[in-house]
Amino acid sequence: MALLIIGKDIIKDYYHEICKQAPHRDIRLWPNIGDPNDILHALAWHPEHGELARLPNLKTIVSLGAGVDHLLEDLKLPNVPVIRYVDPDLTSRMVEYIILNTLLHTRRMMEYQNQQRVSKWQYLPVPTAKDIRVGIMGMGVLGSAAASALYGMGFKIRGWSRRIQQIENILSFAGTENLDTFLAETDILVVLLPDTKKTKGLINRMLIRKLSLSGRHPSLPGPVLINGGRGAVQIETDILAALETGELYSASLDVFENEPLSLDSPLWKHPRVSITPHTAGVSTPEVIAAYFLNHVKSSESGKCPKNVVDRSVGY
Amino acid sequence: MALLIIGKDIIKDYYHEICKQAPHRDIRLWPNIGDPNDILHALAWHPEHGELARLPNLKTIVSLGAGVDHLLEDLKLPNVPVIRYVDPDLTSRMVEYIILNTLLHTRRMMEYQNQQRVSKWQYLPVPTAKDIRVGIMGMGVLGSAAASALYGMGFKIRGWSRRIQQIENILSFAGTENLDTFLAETDILVVLLPDTKKTKGLINRMLIRKLSLSGRHPSLPGPVLINGGRGAVQIETDILAALETGELYSASLDVFENEPLSLDSPLWKHPRVSITPHTAGVSTPEVIAAYFLNHVKSSESGKCPKNVVDRSVGY
Repeated sequence: MALLIIGKDIIKDYYHEICKQAPHRDIRLWPNIGDPNDILHALAWHPEHGELARLPNLKTIVSLGAGVDHLLEDLKLPNVPVIRYVDPDLTSRMVEYIILNTLLHTRRMMEYQNQQRVSKWQYLPVPTAKDIRVGIMGMGVLGSAAASALYGMGFKIRGWSRRIQQIENILSFAGTENLDTFLAETDILVVLLPDTKKTKGLINRMLIRKLSLSGRHPSLPGPVLINGGRGAVQIETDILAALETGELYSASLDVFENEPLSLDSPLWKHPRVSITPHTAGVSTPEVIAAYFLNHVKSSESGKCPKNVVDRSVGY
Repeated sequence: MALLIIGKDIIKDYYHEICKQAPHRDIRLWPNIGDPNDILHALAWHPEHGELARLPNLKTIVSLGAGVDHLLEDLKLPNVPVIRYVDPDLTSRMVEYIILNTLLHTRRMMEYQNQQRVSKWQYLPVPTAKDIRVGIMGMGVLGSAAASALYGMGFKIRGWSRRIQQIENILSFAGTENLDTFLAETDILVVLLPDTKKTKGLINRMLIRKLSLSGRHPSLPGPVLINGGRGAVQIETDILAALETGELYSASLDVFENEPLSLDSPLWKHPRVSITPHTAGVSTPEVIAAYFLNHVKSSESGKCPKNVVDRSVGY
């Protein structure tokens, strides 16, 4: 039996780490797959469509990241369990990304940084955590962990998801029928939604206009958007237009409709937009390799795989 | 009896808020103090030296901020209790400042922001909380609260103070004899020290060189300095020199040797220095006014004042 590491260029680092952690295993790096019959498990990141279908004995496919859209878009994807990457390391990193960016805008740090650029010493009144309502769209493992951490810091938290989640101290909303109420009570919108048919383009101008309609603290200049999930969920021209009119005060974007973000996107230069290159939840090769190898061992001992994706909902 | 609000220009906002909260009290705004005999309590922020000595019946002096150096430097300061400003609102704000800046450097955000400025899409490996040792100098109310919050996020925490503080999960160091050990195990140094004879100029080149000498995580490029306390504690030319050589990777400074920071300071333009204009722990006039008026009421009912400064140590 053999394992396959398949996908974009970045996957090489993961291949080397897996070889290091399991020196006696037969591990192959796409496109040098050898005999396709040998391969039982694959670790994949944006594999070429149709490639996984060439493996007749494939038992499971493990995604290198929390998102699995890159796999489910492959119309020829074999009908075997797809495993999402869930790990405390990834969760910590995503929570750190969300806390950092929530505080960045709460404390109007982008304005302070713009002042610094022109050596300007000027106090700006800023709200504190208890003045701010953070609304999290997508209350899975990452969203729930972020919610608890932000609640612990004093922020008021609302969660929105497909189904109602019962989480202590978090006001929960579910479904399109409650979306407007959720948005009206959200000052900082944190998006951790998967890329599915239902979420594509959801963060558009109309949605942004519904943010923070009542009760916003006077020292927060306007609603804030943080997207650490998937770029396909947002309409970037709408975000820019909303920033222009003040419907949106500022934004932190880690994901984009097209990645890498095009050199000519006006988002790069916007004074109140913070851009990171899809690194909010990048785990290390060490941790991902261990996750993959644990999954393989567990499968070999006959256990049911954990973190299996529900293909009917797309995550 | 009357109350006096005295100090720098900014004090006016506080005067107006106190009048609003206590419309029936006799409240005076320096320099219009009326009969000096009337004044029993003063709220002060950088008052002119000698001015408080003109009040023969003064019972207490309340500082508008956590620091009291602006009062104790007055050689003619009357020998009455000096009250430090301690309030959950101030504590939350300072903790938010420290978490924000700790994460900013942990996640190499200043480098990411520099990349953004030139539209560069480039992944940088970053450590996560558990990889980083945060050392806090000054473990009073603010330092202890920051320590607990950062510990909760997964950071490893060390505290350094004049006397050993017993705080759960925090490795405690005290006195000059243990300073080197503390520094060698500190990747991100958070300074919350008061301005006293013993702390003046303490954050100098020699001290910075001792930071993070053993066990630094490979994805943190170098030690980090965060000063949310008092500018007199740091030597800015030393900080700049250490940034130049890499002895220091980056810094967040909220306080400076001279404030406002001089227009020609190279700190303004340094690509890995984040500057804020002494706003880390600025509370709102509403909260400070309530604190002052509570103190006055409590004093009138004969209670011993809380948060009295120990003049022998300077805070």
